[in-house]
Formats: sequence, structure tokens, C-alpha cells
Amino acid sequence: MRTLMLLFPGFTVLDAFGPYHALGMLPGSEFDFVAEHRGPLTTGKVTLEVPVSIDDVDSCDLLVVPGGIPAIVMARDGHPLIDWIRQVHPTTTWTTSVCTGALMLGAAGVLDGVRATTHWYSHAELANYGAIPVDERVVVDGKVITAAGVSAGIDMALTLTEMIAGTDYAQATQLDMEYSPEPPLDAGHPRTAPAAVTAWLRAMYDSMLG
Amino acid sequence: MRTLMLLFPGFTVLDAFGPYHALGMLPGSEFDFVAEHRGPLTTGKVTLEVPVSIDDVDSCDLLVVPGGIPAIVMARDGHPLIDWIRQVHPTTTWTTSVCTGALMLGAAGVLDGVRATTHWYSHAELANYGAIPVDERVVVDGKVITAAGVSAGIDMALTLTEMIAGTDYAQATQLDMEYSPEPPLDAGHPRTAPAAVTAWLRAMYDSMLG
Repeated sequence: MRTLMLLFPGFTVLDAFGPYHALGMLPGSEFDFVAEHRGPLTTGKVTLEVPVSIDDVDSCDLLVVPGGIPAIVMARDGHPLIDWIRQVHPTTTWTTSVCTGALMLGAAGVLDGVRATTHWYSHAELANYGAIPVDERVVVDGKVITAAGVSAGIDMALTLTEMIAGTDYAQATQLDMEYSPEPPLDAGHPRTAPAAVTAWLRAMYDSMLG
Repeated sequence: MRTLMLLFPGFTVLDAFGPYHALGMLPGSEFDFVAEHRGPLTTGKVTLEVPVSIDDVDSCDLLVVPGGIPAIVMARDGHPLIDWIRQVHPTTTWTTSVCTGALMLGAAGVLDGVRATTHWYSHAELANYGAIPVDERVVVDGKVITAAGVSAGIDMALTLTEMIAGTDYAQATQLDMEYSPEPPLDAGHPRTAPAAVTAWLRAMYDSMLG
């Protein structure tokens, strides 16, 4: 089993490294990061060495696509990574996304008629790609699994770990990461966050998209 | 305000990149990764470029120490990183850890008489360093904040974000990362995990420590 996690400059670090904790060490799985180009890739204060280029690989068993502001832009404008996803998706057993990585799946045609979720800010935009937006944290539709924003990738990865490796193994993974969350605040979704906080954040995302 | 996150080969990726999402972009804060040596540092399938060596810096406002199996070993056996923590701690406003990073704080003398937590597997070992082990997910004792295992770093970082930048900003950070967790299983702590799963994982950690 080969797992590929697709990275790009500006990807949201936690979108990738939440799921990595579970999916990077699945038994019997070969895991690699892949990006448009091999070599150093920067997002925020993080510079990673990416070992595999999209030119080197055209199939995998499990594809994981994290998000970030650039994912929204690439989905809207087109990008070689979108073309690559379109090519790889028919070869996968599972095609998955975290946060706005779902929009990249959408632009690649993966979500046509598929129930899906993404970060709350971009949720309505899923419909532009033919998806059926579902207001859930993790959505499984056939072989396509999408997660809501950022931290939802951890829930998605545990869901997928249970499907691939069984309940005992998934429980061990959850226990290893001591994932019994206790958020100190209750603002993790616009349903619970103060309206002014949601409006401020929405305006910030709007301005980042220009 | 200067924030340093201390890395070492084999650190647990999510210990660092959960908190990074909140603490890497605090307003008015300069954030850097630091390690024993500048340059590439590998943990699992991740190779990062570390920009700052411990030889280059002897103070900061916020220190974050993630964990991993090597943290347990360095704490037990001694290591230049432990000496560096001992030197830097008196200069900080906040000294923090995630997971077994707490044992490194302990070995550096930071936890003497201090209430603290760490990953469930290493919890009792805190007392070896003079700490008062507390069975909580995030423990604040004066300027020292410790988190339980791996994913608890996210809760710690939000707690600290609220203290540093205020409730509105911390709520925006939680909303940005859509942190309204829904674990698909209930095995995040030995209190809830099946005993056989806990025993299996404990044996695996034991074997990694040789």
C-alpha cells in the first residue's frame, strides 16, 4: 500500500501533520510526501524537504490532500497539481482531503455528485464543483473521504485508520496521540463562536484572497 | 516577543505542529525553530530545515518543548539540549512542553516542586524530577505550562494564546482551525481505552526504550 500526501507552498501545516500522525505509520504502508517539485518547500516558518515530485508518480493507494488559502486559489484558477489529482484519483483505493484540500479534489472532478465537507469558510463553494455540501466533520462517500477545517483531519485520519487497519489498531493510534480533546474555549465552529469573531476571521480570509 | 520551539531528531511531529498552528502566528511574536544543530533534521518521514542552533541563542520569551521517545532518553541520560533548557528557562516569560517534552523540562530542573503533566505512559516518571504529577490535560503552574500527550498540545496552545493575546484572539484561532473535535472512537486515554490496547501500546513503548 502506497500513501501519498500532496504538499504545496503555503499549505496549512496542521492539515497535513494531524493526519500524518495516524497515516504516516500505518502497518504495511509506504508513506511519502509529494509536491510539484522535489526539494525544499516552505509554508510559514516551516521548510520541508519533499522527496517525490508529481512527475515521478502517477498512482497510489491512499491520497491525502491538505488545504490552505493556496488550495482555494489553485482550485479556482487551475494548476498542474489539480491535473495530477485528476490523473491519480482513478488509481486510488481512498482519495481524501482536509480543509480546503476538498476544493482541489472538486476542481479535479473528484467530487461530482459526491457528498463532501471542507472548512466552514469555503463550505458553500463545494457546490461550484458539483459536490453535495454536507455539514459534518468527516464525510465518507464511497472511496472519497473529506474532512472539515484543519483539526478535523485528525478525526478523518482515525476514521480511515479504523477502516484500513481495524478498530484495535485505530484505538491504539488514538491512545498513542492521547486524543481525548478538551478545548479550553467553545469557538471551533461558527455555530458556537461569537458572531464578531467569525466576521473578523471571514474578512481576513477575504482579504488574503484579494 | 520571541518564541522558540525546540526540535530534535525523532520528535513527535504533531507535538510540535499542533501548537505551531496557534503559537507560530501570534501577533507581535517572532517565531523560530531551534535545534542542537542548524540545518536538516529528520523525524520519521519528515525532514525539516532548522534555521537556528542552540549555540546562537540563550534566551527567549516563550519556549515550547515537544516530546517523543528521544525526549524520555535525553531526560534520563542527559544531553546538551537539557543544559540549554536549564540556561534559557530563567529568561522566559513562559516555559512550556507537550507530551514527554515535560521530562526534558524536569531533567533541566524546571519542574522542581511544580505541578505538571505529560503523556500517560510517562506520567509517574515526572516525580523522578521533583515534579508534582497532575492528572490533567493542561497544567499551568506559574510560568510553566505542561500538556499531556501529543494532541494535548493543541489545548495547551489555545490556553496560552488566550493568556497572551486575549479571549477574542484565542477564539479566532480555534475557529480558524475548526477545533470542535469529534473523535470517532473513545480510546484517547487509558481511562477509556480497552485494557488490551493500552497494554499493547505500553509494551511497544517499553521495547522502543530498550
